[in-house]
Amino acid sequence: MKLMTETKHKIVNTVFMVLLVAVVTSPLSSAKAQDMLPSWNDGAAKTAILEFVAAVTDKNDKDYVEPAERIATFDNDGTLWVEYPMYTQALFAFDRVKTLAPQHPDWKTQQPFKGVLEGDMKAVGASGMKGLMEIIMATHSGMTAAEFEQEVSDWLSTTKQSKFKRLYTELVYQPQLELLAYLRANGFKTFIVSGGGIAFMRPISEKTYGIPPEQVVGSSVVAEFKIKDGKPALIRQPKINFINDKAGKPVGIYQHIGRRPILAFGNSDSDMQMIEYTLAGEGRRLGLFVHHTDADREYAYDRKSHVGTLDKALDAADTNGWIIVNMKKDWKQVFPEK
Amino acid sequence: MKLMTETKHKIVNTVFMVLLVAVVTSPLSSAKAQDMLPSWNDGAAKTAILEFVAAVTDKNDKDYVEPAERIATFDNDGTLWVEYPMYTQALFAFDRVKTLAPQHPDWKTQQPFKGVLEGDMKAVGASGMKGLMEIIMATHSGMTAAEFEQEVSDWLSTTKQSKFKRLYTELVYQPQLELLAYLRANGFKTFIVSGGGIAFMRPISEKTYGIPPEQVVGSSVVAEFKIKDGKPALIRQPKINFINDKAGKPVGIYQHIGRRPILAFGNSDSDMQMIEYTLAGEGRRLGLFVHHTDADREYAYDRKSHVGTLDKALDAADTNGWIIVNMKKDWKQVFPEK
Repeated sequence: MKLMTETKHKIVNTVFMVLLVAVVTSPLSSAKAQDMLPSWNDGAAKTAILEFVAAVTDKNDKDYVEPAERIATFDNDGTLWVEYPMYTQALFAFDRVKTLAPQHPDWKTQQPFKGVLEGDMKAVGASGMKGLMEIIMATHSGMTAAEFEQEVSDWLSTTKQSKFKRLYTELVYQPQLELLAYLRANGFKTFIVSGGGIAFMRPISEKTYGIPPEQVVGSSVVAEFKIKDGKPALIRQPKINFINDKAGKPVGIYQHIGRRPILAFGNSDSDMQMIEYTLAGEGRRLGLFVHHTDADREYAYDRKSHVGTLDKALDAADTNGWIIVNMKKDWKQVFPEK
Repeated sequence: MKLMTETKHKIVNTVFMVLLVAVVTSPLSSAKAQDMLPSWNDGAAKTAILEFVAAVTDKNDKDYVEPAERIATFDNDGTLWVEYPMYTQALFAFDRVKTLAPQHPDWKTQQPFKGVLEGDMKAVGASGMKGLMEIIMATHSGMTAAEFEQEVSDWLSTTKQSKFKRLYTELVYQPQLELLAYLRANGFKTFIVSGGGIAFMRPISEKTYGIPPEQVVGSSVVAEFKIKDGKPALIRQPKINFINDKAGKPVGIYQHIGRRPILAFGNSDSDMQMIEYTLAGEGRRLGLFVHHTDADREYAYDRKSHVGTLDKALDAADTNGWIIVNMKKDWKQVFPEK
């Protein structure tokens, strides 16, 4: 009888362990078991998300979507991490200009480099898009893909943001991290679709957002395959390959993903085309914008901002059924705990 | 005692059911439990594959690779499906010329279209790359992305290959289907990296190979986002965006995937750069070529072939440690059963 009992205990323990493993490793059961969006306050935005996900994942719902087609695309700057008062990648480029300056004595007298070196942002701004492109080309090309990746990784792991004194990878939005995880737990494949450089985001996308490099879509420079120091390498060229912004976003989605998203999330007028393209597909779709309304916890800016202008999209939101997420009201917490 | 026994049976049954579920749903256990490559004959090629996968998936092996970095890239034409005597996409383009001819009366007298319409392949060939591009542009652009996808799907689901009288999607290599599944069961992410059109492969890649559209890298035309018939759409333009062939393959891998593969499989000299780039990474890597040696079951062609020339790669294979897969010897079965 003792043996019997021991055997029974052993069996019960085994069942328990196996069931535990099953529960822990089954994404759907955990998604249903608890609120996976604790940093989202109750309200229209959270409700819209929960109802949408419930509908497209329910086989008995008329809006059911097969897992393979559950593509969700997120803008990066201002949607997943802080973009104010200056795009992170621009700050990286300015720092690279300072680092490279000793090799370019002419930059001391030549705009827009002179402006960057002297901290004269007005002069940099006056150089316009042409000047900005010169800075990008001077700092983002000429090296191998691996070298550039290392430069980005080093910079992002050491440089702190001016207001919050934290790494940029720590200034990601906690509610969005939860949303990304929630969507993945419900069978979605999550992508970044950003106007920013694809090679600037990929080194940190997996660790920061759980989004692997191959699911990052962005702007890029031309690359060439060459033998360098006797080894095959990709050399970044001083030439734009693709600008993944505004009307470029649906194009980037087509070329990279090859399916139309069913959910798209942005924060500025530059994301309108991505969201229009997403919602124009058949069946139920969801389009959202972050509205930066929180000067205390983050920043407040919209219609006349120098970065991330949210103007036309604000006016057109109601007509188009776009969800405007009010950071101050809808987000219980903005950044992850330190 | 009867109750006891019943309870015990119930528990044992539960354990059995749960374990069964665990075994069925656990990719690694099934990969180890049986030979997942039954259509591969024993030999150097199969051994190289098995040893490579065993090493990179064994945490105690010096060559262990984290699952996220287990990227495998496969050429398509001649590596995953038949490319002889003519690339499938070229045959599609020729058929499209015939379909569209009534709207283009000038084609009757204008090469290379005249040649296509009259079945004069010599004339088409004489028009060279310029002529081929004219045919591609005339048949692959001007429509929306969705319309083109439909045209491709319709054609591939109805057109049969000349020698085997089967759909092209049935003329895929059974050993490669097994290899793709085996790699995925071992945590690999499998990609197509082809010189062919990305939009020509994506409609069938998931169903045929288990490779979703977002894991297909290929050549492309420029696309533009426009409002068509009141709806946002992507219009394919008569302009090359990217040629994903030869030295373009490592570039396509960089732009789309953003990681260097650890295994690459091709079948022609056009795949050399992809394989060189793959093997130049640190740690253990594997590069393979299909050698078409089987005139009975498929085709025999290599050094002076008009498609899929395998010449320089054959000479350089030994020096570089590339695995040459001899179709006749290494493959027990070429195509899936009817």
